[in-house]
Order: sequence, then C-alpha cells, then structure tokens
Amino acid sequence: MQDFTFQNGTKIIFGKDQEQVVGQETVVYGKKVLLHFGGGSIKESGLYDRVVQSLQEQGVEIFELGGVKPNPRVSLVREGVTLCKENRIDLILAVGGGSVIDSAKAIAIGVNYDGDVWDFFTGNASVADCLPIGVVLTIPAAGSESSAGSVITNEEGAYKRAVGHETMRPKFAILNPVLTYTLPSYQTACGITDMMAHILERYFTNEKHVDLTDRLCEATLKTIINNAHTVLEEPTNYHARAEIMWAGTLAHNDLLNTGRIGDWGSHDIEHEISGIYDLAHGAGLAIIFPAWMKYVYKHDVNRFAQFANRVWDVEIDLNDLEKTALAGIKKTEEFFSSIGMPVTLKEANIDDEHFEEMARKGTERGPLGNFVKLQETDVYNIYQLAK
Amino acid sequence: MQDFTFQNGTKIIFGKDQEQVVGQETVVYGKKVLLHFGGGSIKESGLYDRVVQSLQEQGVEIFELGGVKPNPRVSLVREGVTLCKENRIDLILAVGGGSVIDSAKAIAIGVNYDGDVWDFFTGNASVADCLPIGVVLTIPAAGSESSAGSVITNEEGAYKRAVGHETMRPKFAILNPVLTYTLPSYQTACGITDMMAHILERYFTNEKHVDLTDRLCEATLKTIINNAHTVLEEPTNYHARAEIMWAGTLAHNDLLNTGRIGDWGSHDIEHEISGIYDLAHGAGLAIIFPAWMKYVYKHDVNRFAQFANRVWDVEIDLNDLEKTALAGIKKTEEFFSSIGMPVTLKEANIDDEHFEEMARKGTERGPLGNFVKLQETDVYNIYQLAK
Repeated sequence: MQDFTFQNGTKIIFGKDQEQVVGQETVVYGKKVLLHFGGGSIKESGLYDRVVQSLQEQGVEIFELGGVKPNPRVSLVREGVTLCKENRIDLILAVGGGSVIDSAKAIAIGVNYDGDVWDFFTGNASVADCLPIGVVLTIPAAGSESSAGSVITNEEGAYKRAVGHETMRPKFAILNPVLTYTLPSYQTACGITDMMAHILERYFTNEKHVDLTDRLCEATLKTIINNAHTVLEEPTNYHARAEIMWAGTLAHNDLLNTGRIGDWGSHDIEHEISGIYDLAHGAGLAIIFPAWMKYVYKHDVNRFAQFANRVWDVEIDLNDLEKTALAGIKKTEEFFSSIGMPVTLKEANIDDEHFEEMARKGTERGPLGNFVKLQETDVYNIYQLAK
Repeated sequence: MQDFTFQNGTKIIFGKDQEQVVGQETVVYGKKVLLHFGGGSIKESGLYDRVVQSLQEQGVEIFELGGVKPNPRVSLVREGVTLCKENRIDLILAVGGGSVIDSAKAIAIGVNYDGDVWDFFTGNASVADCLPIGVVLTIPAAGSESSAGSVITNEEGAYKRAVGHETMRPKFAILNPVLTYTLPSYQTACGITDMMAHILERYFTNEKHVDLTDRLCEATLKTIINNAHTVLEEPTNYHARAEIMWAGTLAHNDLLNTGRIGDWGSHDIEHEISGIYDLAHGAGLAIIFPAWMKYVYKHDVNRFAQFANRVWDVEIDLNDLEKTALAGIKKTEEFFSSIGMPVTLKEANIDDEHFEEMARKGTERGPLGNFVKLQETDVYNIYQLAK
C-alpha cells in the first residue's frame, strides 16, 4: 500500500427537497454569490426559482452566469473570472452537472490570479487559492461535486485539459435524487458510464496489497451496475436514483484512491475525442474503456480475472485465467451497450480521420496512463481497436 | 434510503514515518499543545521522543498529561480541562489509541464550558464548541481518530457514557501502521473486534434500499476478516497492518452510516459490562454481539442471510433462510474465538451477579438499539445468552 494523505471536507447534504437549505449553506461564506448554470432546464423545472428564493431569504446578492455547455469552454470561464473580480464575489454556486461545476472551479481559481486562467491548465501557473464553491447537483456523473479537479476545453485548438488542487473541493454539495428524475435516458447512461470509469481508472493499478480499496471499488461498481437498469426503466424510482447519485460522488471523492496509483489513460484518450467531436464524455468512455482493456489486460491477467469474478460474477477458471479476464471485459462492453451507450467509434459516427492527430496531441506532454505507460503508437492502436 | 448530511474533514496522513510531520500539522492551530497519552509504552518505543522533537522543531510549547487508562476516566478529563484552561492550550494532541483520543475529546469540549464536563455525558449540557484535536494513532480499533464521538467512564457509580458532536472530529490523524507492530496479540484482536462491531452496528438496520452502504460495509468486513489472522501470525507484516489500520478508521468515520440508521444496542449492552468489570471493550463486544445476533435475528432473517452469504461466503439455502442466517452468526462467533477473543462471559470470568443491575442501568434512559428496541428484560436475556 502506498503512503497517502486523504482529506475531503465537502459537506454532503443528501435527500428530498434539500435544495431548500442552499441559502443557509451559502451565507456562511458571504453575501455575494455568482449563480452559475447551463441552459434553461433549471428554469423549466422550477429549480432555479427555488434556489433564488432560498438565497434571497438569506439576503444574498445574486450575480448570474448561465450558458455552460457540455465540455465547458475557457471563454465562458474568462467571463466568469471578470464578473467575480468586478463584483467581489464571495462564493460561486454551481447549479447543474459536472460541466457547470468544473466551469465554476476554473472561475474560482482564476479570481485571485492576474494572468489568463488557461495558464493553470497548461501547467504555466500553479493553483494557490480558490474561491469557495457550493453545488446543487442535477446530474450524477462527473463526481466533481466533491472532487478536487476541473476539466476545461479551450476551443482554440480543441484542447481539453485538467487541473486539480485540494482547495478546489466544493465546500458543500446538495444532492437531491428527485432532481435527476427528468434526465433523458441517454444522459443518465452517460453519467453511469462516467462514474464507473472513475472507479475503473482507480481499480487498474500496479500497486499490490490494496485489499480494502479493491473491495470498496468493487462494492461501488456492483451497486451502480445493479441499479442502472432500474433507473433507466423507472426514472422516478427514488431509491435507485439515490444509490446511483451517492455512488457517483463516492466514485470520485478520492477515498477509492487511497494507497494506490490509478491509471487515467482512458480518460486522457477520451478527452482527445470529446475535445474535437463534442461527444458526451460518458459515451466516449464507453467506447474507449473496453478498447483500452483489450489492449492492456495481459499486463496483469490476475487483476482482470479478479475484476471479472468480483464485479461481474464470472467464475474463475484457474486453468485459463485469460479466458476469465476476457469474459470480464466482454461483460463490461455488453453492459455499456445494454444501457444505450455506443461501444465503437463507428456507432458515434467517428471515423479514423483524426486518429493520428489525437494520438499525437494526447501524448505531447508524455505517455498516458500508469497501469501501462502508453506512447503515441499505443494510443493510436487503441483508437484502432475502438473503431 | 434516509436523508443524511455527511461531512468528515479529518485529514488522514497515512504511511511509514508519518509521525515526523506532527509538528507541521500541529502548528497550524497554534503554539501551545497538550500532549495527552496513556502509559509508558510510547516512551519505551521512542514514539514520544519523535513526537516531541517534531513539535519542538516547530517551536511548539508542550504541556503534558499522561496516565489515560482503558475505559478512560472522567477524573483525568477534569484534570485536563483545568490544565487547558490555565495554560490557554491551542490544540490537544492525543498520542495513543481510542481511550486517549476519547479522553482528549472530552477535555476539548470541557475547556470552554463553566460547569462539570460530565454534564455533557449525562445530557445536562450540549456541546457547543471543541478545542482542535490532533492524533497520532497507535492502536487501530475505536475509530475515534476521525469520529465525532467520545466514551468516558465515571468511576463514581461505574457509568460509561457517550457524547458526540460534529466539532469533535480530530483535525488531523497520523496513521503509521509500523507503530502497531508491537501491539500484543490480545490488543490487536480486541481492536479487530471493535472495528468489526462498528460496522455490524451500522449493518443491522431496518432501512431498506441501502445497497451501496451494505456493500461498502461488507467490503470493509471482508478486508478485516481476510487480514486478521495475518497480523496475528506476522505482527510485522506492513501491508496487513495497513489494511487493518485503514479499515478501522473507515469503520467508524460515518461514511458507512450514510442513508441508514444503525443499531448500537450491543455497544450499550457492552458498556455496562466494561463499566463495572474493566474488561477490554473489544473483548466485551466479542461476547455480546453473537448473543445479540441470536436474540434478534428473527426480526429480519433475510438481512442475516445476506450477511452470512456476502461476508462469510455461506451459500444461501432458499428453502431454509433461517439456517443460512444462523450459519452466519456461528461463523461470526467462531471467528472471534479464532482470534483469541472470549465469546462467553464465563471465559472472561464474569458471572451473573450484576446482570439485573446492568440491565437496569443500561436501560434507565430508555430502550437500547434501533434494529430491535430492547427493554430491560431483553437486555437481561442477552446477558443470559452470553453466559
């Protein structure tokens, strides 16, 4: 087991109607808030009105910045930074999913920085401090509501880059499963894939002696798998929605990471796709993860056999562990397909036009992944396997 | 799933030699520290010297209070409160196991209170604030290093009572598995039993739809069970010690509690025993938990069958779920016995002399437990079953 430091102080407020306390939680940090959101769905659902009412009841002054898109853009982040600087904002309240929260985090680290906020994403600046962030979560997927990271797309050059710092964890996150009832099936499935991918990235490690975190990963994966079809077939099943929502947070709050070094190659390989094609991140992961697994499983057949057995209930064939391992990969791919995800680039209408470019750009800062270090050619081969 | 709020900001610093950073972590909260510990073992092992050196390097002024005993006494807590008040202490540093940490917490809530600190434990006062607490953990067991609770014994009347408040969570906890190499087998086994009991108290709930937390509980229990014999047979096996140490913290940091209401009857029933007899808490739990299980399992045979199947790998007999359930209880009892714990009161040299008194005192503030509400007679019957 690796040495580690783990601290996650995000206050999780979970359950029905919990958005009603957003004013009380916000006012702890000040009276001026930037309300950050995406499109009009929170206005249509009435969530916007309830949040505004709760904030106003606490005498909070609200500044607004809507318009966050999936794969959030640095241009809007720059707007947010200016808004916060001009109005001396105390807290950024993200009402939405991972894109809105990531955008809020990027704004929050830019406020006390004189240069361009994109510097943090290129490695030309280091995060020193971060405005407090609050969250009302509407899409269980990215786990950004209690994570320390943010992923932003720079539309000039189609770069999608991540930055992380402990100060970037939201102060509070309100999780009301009812708010997820109206998510389209496709978005629900993308979220399920994203949270599973967050666990898989941590699961495939070269670290031995990670018994506890292996089992916690398996427990969370099994919960997601067991509840996935229920939420798709019964979108208003509270308990299944609640299991998925809480699992999505745990998948990415860094507990499942303790004592081990995760891989993260598949995320990076996917980022190149959704940087160019504006494909939903979850859908991209459903395509890339099985291809990555097929490309690297021989590196540690035992680990893939354990995964097949404990997560997918594949019986271990001690005379042919490779067969067991491959059965687990097949089950993973079939599962993604069963919840409506594409599992090949072709299904997502993506051809091989940009394979070379994506492999080059993805590896220009060094090889990807930790379980197996992937060079440019490896990444290209994985795109080929995912065709 | 029940609504919940979960926040645990304790900074966990885990790994070899990590006690060397105790000075840096402490000085964040001030320059005056009360160093709180038990007997002489930390001096013999050299831990005391390393901690003092690290504190001195940061210019921290050290006040000392040793002498904490298992089942920590309110009399020493009162001494600590006076010491802290007189010297305007900034942080209490607990170097030891659960008893030392619980004693530190009791002192910490007493410092800004004018009355007697025992008032918090009788319900005559409510916790309002708490001095910062730091921990260097030497015994993985109680989980107090990141929990919000404290259990103290009042030697006048042999009362053992608990109090909890969110402000009581330690600010940081340093967990170095190497420090646990020298624990006697009996103490290691008591710790293992204690952490398992913390999970079992949460596991046996009447709440339905707790899929994720059920599985996380099972994952943690399986890890403890799988590593228990290793640490007893190879006390210097780093990885097994690390698994047990981290599992002990997770068992009681309240994550496994989210969305469900635990039982805690067995803990209360045990407290009456160790309040009178000064039996190690873990040993008392090894005796009481199997007896409690035998007394209550019919209340929810399915849950006990799930426990038998998922934790102990007992095959589910759909034609006789009760048989499955009972097999799981038997496995639990056999396991405690296999790690050297007593599983009857007789083995701990405790006869029925105080059964009536303990049942009466234990229930004088109301029935015990939540899974099944236990009245005085029920508690008496459980002592009889544990004879």
